[in-house]
Amino acid sequence: MKIILADSAGFCFGVKRATQLAFKAAEDNCPICSLGPIIHSPQVVERLEEKGVRVVERVEDIERGTVIIRSHGITSGELADIHARNLIPVDATCPFVKKVQDYVTLLCAEGYAVVLVGEKDHPEVQGIISYADQAEVAVVADSEEAQRLPSQSKIGLVAQTTQSFENFHQVADVCLRKAKEVRVFNTICDATSVRQDEAREIAQQVDLMLILGGFNSANTTRLAQICRELQPRTYHVEVASQIKPEWFVGVKVVGVTAGASTPRWIIDEVLRLVGSFEN
Amino acid sequence: MKIILADSAGFCFGVKRATQLAFKAAEDNCPICSLGPIIHSPQVVERLEEKGVRVVERVEDIERGTVIIRSHGITSGELADIHARNLIPVDATCPFVKKVQDYVTLLCAEGYAVVLVGEKDHPEVQGIISYADQAEVAVVADSEEAQRLPSQSKIGLVAQTTQSFENFHQVADVCLRKAKEVRVFNTICDATSVRQDEAREIAQQVDLMLILGGFNSANTTRLAQICRELQPRTYHVEVASQIKPEWFVGVKVVGVTAGASTPRWIIDEVLRLVGSFEN
Repeated sequence: MKIILADSAGFCFGVKRATQLAFKAAEDNCPICSLGPIIHSPQVVERLEEKGVRVVERVEDIERGTVIIRSHGITSGELADIHARNLIPVDATCPFVKKVQDYVTLLCAEGYAVVLVGEKDHPEVQGIISYADQAEVAVVADSEEAQRLPSQSKIGLVAQTTQSFENFHQVADVCLRKAKEVRVFNTICDATSVRQDEAREIAQQVDLMLILGGFNSANTTRLAQICRELQPRTYHVEVASQIKPEWFVGVKVVGVTAGASTPRWIIDEVLRLVGSFEN
Repeated sequence: MKIILADSAGFCFGVKRATQLAFKAAEDNCPICSLGPIIHSPQVVERLEEKGVRVVERVEDIERGTVIIRSHGITSGELADIHARNLIPVDATCPFVKKVQDYVTLLCAEGYAVVLVGEKDHPEVQGIISYADQAEVAVVADSEEAQRLPSQSKIGLVAQTTQSFENFHQVADVCLRKAKEVRVFNTICDATSVRQDEAREIAQQVDLMLILGGFNSANTTRLAQICRELQPRTYHVEVASQIKPEWFVGVKVVGVTAGASTPRWIIDEVLRLVGSFEN
């Protein structure tokens, strides 16, 4: 059986940086915790817990010590609370997410009605929209939701970093019908589209596609959706042990890719396991 | 024979304003000329000539007196020359065109690579792009031409006021693929789209469509294109005398609309003529 592994599988720049910062901080500091899971990989979070990094959901539950700010970022209110409680922050926010937060601040200051394309409940989105001072950001999932927005004199448009270009462009098109001025910051991370494009290409060449990554990872879930449209035999798994040998009956070529928060060790485990199947 | 006349046929706000300014200025000033035709209606220009308003093509050919700046606007260089030669300008530039000129100045000052959707050789476009200080505006007719633009860090997008929304949106979509930031000013005049929408509606209900307006008028020519797609029996004429009775054989319902620079008296002449045909 032939295995095609995507070059772009696994950790993106922001996740790699956040993970390195977190393991380094865990060596140097105690007590230490992270506000929410540092990245959307339960396996990485577990390894960090073994190093003493507790996951805490609310700032008010932290008495003292160091707080790692996860790659998706936190809200401006949480950051203020961290400072107010004299906790020591280690900022592992992805620099690309930080940029979106800054654009939202800028757009609000310049009087734009801000629209964000993304998932309302995602921590990245919750963080970003909190940077709109004294204004509310309209979060829309797609162009259909954007259609329901009121007309405005000027709209500022940004996106959750893991959104698809197509969806973003469709929303931009609707915004152009809603306002005389539309200022668009394309904040979609290239890593996401590169990974998606490569996944599309591989999915068309294989008999079965494996997508590795946290079930709570939005970008991994999207990868699985994209591949499933091209290759119905697409499986999304978190770890090698979830893979079933019977999936591979009659399979000659397997494609493998992984979300931005999937560590290399999980990819390697899967490769070893699938390589051991005889077909 | 039934005649459906579009409510939106004829003079738009800017043309009405320019024509009134010009006739008033002709009463009060001598010598007086206009730099280029005041509006794209040879018939209106002829009537103004009867009142003493000569059409002059170049500022250097004007010795003294009053110069009417036409509704489409002029270049910043021409305006500077008018002042340098101590001529008295009467600014009949359409306020909506003036806005586009101002946006181009603003976008250049803020470091955007400016893209304008429009017709390269149109006087409105020639005027607008001259307001880009020390930078060049890329003029594109459509998304195909926009595809050939280089990538930029930030693009500022504006349109000739008479462009179609659809074409503008298609170019905006291409720009979103070319730059991380795209700032779009929708400078398309509502009057144009209202007139186009009404023309579309009428063209679908009639057996023959008449489009009235200067052959040198871009918005009239576009109206004719739009109607011809829906009703192949579409005729673009400048004056009633160009209409041929044989066009109306078997015609029960006639639609009539007119471009933004078509005066009321031409519309009335056409209505009288067509009304006299017995069918």
